[in-house]
Amino acid sequence: MNKQRLRAIIEGNIVSGIIQFLILASAVVFVLESDSEDPHAPHFILLDSVFFGLFSIEYILRVYIEPRKRDFIFSFYGIIDLLAILPSLFLVPGFRVLRILRFLRIFRIFKATRFILAVDRLTEALNEIRRELLALVILSLMLVYLAACGIHYFEREQQPEEFGTILDSMWWAIVTLTTVGYGDVYPITPGGKIFTALVTLVGVGLIAIPSGLLASVLTEARVERKIEAESEANVDNESTEGIDKQT
Amino acid sequence: MNKQRLRAIIEGNIVSGIIQFLILASAVVFVLESDSEDPHAPHFILLDSVFFGLFSIEYILRVYIEPRKRDFIFSFYGIIDLLAILPSLFLVPGFRVLRILRFLRIFRIFKATRFILAVDRLTEALNEIRRELLALVILSLMLVYLAACGIHYFEREQQPEEFGTILDSMWWAIVTLTTVGYGDVYPITPGGKIFTALVTLVGVGLIAIPSGLLASVLTEARVERKIEAESEANVDNESTEGIDKQT
Amino acid sequence: MNKQRLRAIIEGNIVSGIIQFLILASAVVFVLESDSEDPHAPHFILLDSVFFGLFSIEYILRVYIEPRKRDFIFSFYGIIDLLAILPSLFLVPGFRVLRILRFLRIFRIFKATRFILAVDRLTEALNEIRRELLALVILSLMLVYLAACGIHYFEREQQPEEFGTILDSMWWAIVTLTTVGYGDVYPITPGGKIFTALVTLVGVGLIAIPSGLLASVLTEARVERKIEAESEANVDNESTEGIDKQT
Amino acid sequence: MNKQRLRAIIEGNIVSGIIQFLILASAVVFVLESDSEDPHAPHFILLDSVFFGLFSIEYILRVYIEPRKRDFIFSFYGIIDLLAILPSLFLVPGFRVLRILRFLRIFRIFKATRFILAVDRLTEALNEIRRELLALVILSLMLVYLAACGIHYFEREQQPEEFGTILDSMWWAIVTLTTVGYGDVYPITPGGKIFTALVTLVGVGLIAIPSGLLASVLTEARVERKIEAESEANVDNESTEGIDKQT
Repeated sequence: MNKQRLRAIIEGNIVSGIIQFLILASAVVFVLESDSEDPHAPHFILLDSVFFGLFSIEYILRVYIEPRKRDFIFSFYGIIDLLAILPSLFLVPGFRVLRILRFLRIFRIFKATRFILAVDRLTEALNEIRRELLALVILSLMLVYLAACGIHYFEREQQPEEFGTILDSMWWAIVTLTTVGYGDVYPITPGGKIFTALVTLVGVGLIAIPSGLLASVLTEARVERKIEAESEANVDNESTEGIDKQT
Repeated sequence: MNKQRLRAIIEGNIVSGIIQFLILASAVVFVLESDSEDPHAPHFILLDSVFFGLFSIEYILRVYIEPRKRDFIFSFYGIIDLLAILPSLFLVPGFRVLRILRFLRIFRIFKATRFILAVDRLTEALNEIRRELLALVILSLMLVYLAACGIHYFEREQQPEEFGTILDSMWWAIVTLTTVGYGDVYPITPGGKIFTALVTLVGVGLIAIPSGLLASVLTEARVERKIEAESEANVDNESTEGIDKQT
Repeated sequence: MNKQRLRAIIEGNIVSGIIQFLILASAVVFVLESDSEDPHAPHFILLDSVFFGLFSIEYILRVYIEPRKRDFIFSFYGIIDLLAILPSLFLVPGFRVLRILRFLRIFRIFKATRFILAVDRLTEALNEIRRELLALVILSLMLVYLAACGIHYFEREQQPEEFGTILDSMWWAIVTLTTVGYGDVYPITPGGKIFTALVTLVGVGLIAIPSGLLASVLTEARVERKIEAESEANVDNESTEGIDKQT
Repeated sequence: MNKQRLRAIIEGNIVSGIIQFLILASAVVFVLESDSEDPHAPHFILLDSVFFGLFSIEYILRVYIEPRKRDFIFSFYGIIDLLAILPSLFLVPGFRVLRILRFLRIFRIFKATRFILAVDRLTEALNEIRRELLALVILSLMLVYLAACGIHYFEREQQPEEFGTILDSMWWAIVTLTTVGYGDVYPITPGGKIFTALVTLVGVGLIAIPSGLLASVLTEARVERKIEAESEANVDNESTEGIDKQT
């Protein structure tokens, strides 16, 4: 069979649908297996062998049809496809020792990203603002550090268990700044409460930034496409106009 | 009476107002009935009969005035209008067995969307980004899955009740990633806390995406209308200019 | 003294600063008075008399300098300025009975909005999207209603105290959909937890809408100003060009 | 060595990398020192001396290479660089009394902002909307005040410990409006719960504003750059066109 026909089949709707089903089934089986009292029961071994076999065939075929094999193998999807089969290698006699890596099968779920339309557009937009996002992550970590130091100062004497060290206080800082607020740790001193008010005010502002950034870059991309489409239309109009004038 | 006059009446302010009042009243009665000690009290049966009767008349009239009856019946509003009367059919002798479906009356509330201005513009915008939203939903489910697997790994020994299975851990993942944070389950091990910090960082970023997406599509729609209005004005100017030159 | 000079003084920096200080001081005194064991202590009566007197003078002067008195009295700021003095009328002998309305003094704080720059631009933007915001409020209330009905169905038997009625369940719905999540009420049944997952997914999406809407209308306003400024510049260029061609 | 070569070295990648490492190390040591049982252990004194020495050298060199020394010293980074060394002055004999200011070393972390790319673009955007942000902060404080007064009115009798005074109620207002929701304080009366529903509805709307504002100003900046780039391209086209017409 020639490679192009094979590619058409693999990237066709039927095979794609089967692979998507396998990815989902693999995740469900992983959960059931982990939650089961006997994760090494024969039916789990059997199911995992099926996933292992089919994903291996998929991987081999994808490498086979690719003209630039090395590029594919070291691409994001190439590595993910390999990671999807490696943790099941322990099923092969002689690789029993790899049993410990079985939990890595959770990363099989990333195979699904290949089939999600619009993921490319999102990652492109995120790539465009990667510097700003990195800046935000660093600023957030700085805020966590400062918040932890501050609350430790205010609460350490009243609640030595929860805020006795800066490291412990960081847990509070993360839970508070993300506005999760479990309620396992919270300030009780007036100073700590006022400090929390200030910190959350900044934190809520910080959380607003990624959404604003993303909005700007997505809007730009959309407006750009629009303007391009229009200027093309304008060019057409003008050239027609030009012809009219010539006549 | 001819159909057009009837349509004018049904879609007029008075009848619309009455229907809106009936929808609201129906929801209030549903709550009172459910919360009452005797949901089958005569006054509830009476009120429900009234809603049943009036909504039935409304449905029949709407079908009657519609030229393309089949299209209306299978449209969103057609189905909603039918669903609004079906669960009360048990009031009719011979349909008592449908009593079990009475809770479906809660969907009557969807009849109200017909009267909310600007809902169309919102659904249009959401429709425009449906692929990105679907991608986000899938990515969110993947994050929930990975977060549940991770926290299960860190906390299962310390808190077997809450994190003993991946399925149980998913409850924590949802409550944490939506930043609801009830506080019924939270990590207590250092590893679990650090993992939570990483997961919430990603989660807060994920929550920022829909707002950014929506902003971009709504902005595009607005700017587009603006540019259209302007280019029309420009066309007018240019043609005037052209006339000036000709003279 | 003529009205224009008076207006210049009242709207000048010094008087504005004094009024702002009085508003802040009035709020602080209101808190101290409420939290005090003896809210009718002489110094509180004295301070309130001072605020009453000065705000009354301010109100009378603002009415006096206004050419269209009726318009001002029934404008937003006119009503706020009146509401700022009415609740202290009980200080005047013969109006003791108004004592019960003293808590209305909290609305004095709204007088401050007059001095906040950029509030106009925000209210203008909010006004532009008032229909969408109204639609969102109605949709949110519908979601609260549906969420409350659903969780009541799942949890009423396990937690009759918290979810025994739909009305009680609404408290849970509000606390959950706003992502506040106090943790006083939360689902414990598997069905209730899955339902919560679905509801919060929709809820988080709903919360993203106002920010997207606002972004679009604010962006449009900014881009519009930009384009206007530019097209003016273009007009200048073109007319210059035209002159060049004529010569 | 001449100043320009020195500047090239200081602002080069190697020295920048070392300084970044020192800032991070200084923060880690600060945490370890605070959390240690003996913060005055010799190795902490030694490490702090190293940071003190190196940051002092950095500061002196930065002042030295700057042509406008006064401008640098009173600039944001100048003050931060000075604050980074001052709290360790107690290490110098004769300045022992400054020991109390040691906690100010946490501000060393701000030195890192110099190295975060994209921070300038963010602060520029925030600067553009500083008036709106200030308005939002004031409006938020007003909402906290009104929410605290309201909940105090509804809950003071049922929960005198938590809502007995308006000041205490402010803690609830902040925790609720930021949607943190620890769960240490929450309303239990029907009136208080309805009031909370109203307040959180407004609060969630308020939180949406900064993200919308930021999106608009960032989008404007991006679109502006785009339009500039394009109009330059247009100018080129037109001039070429002009030449074509002349021939």
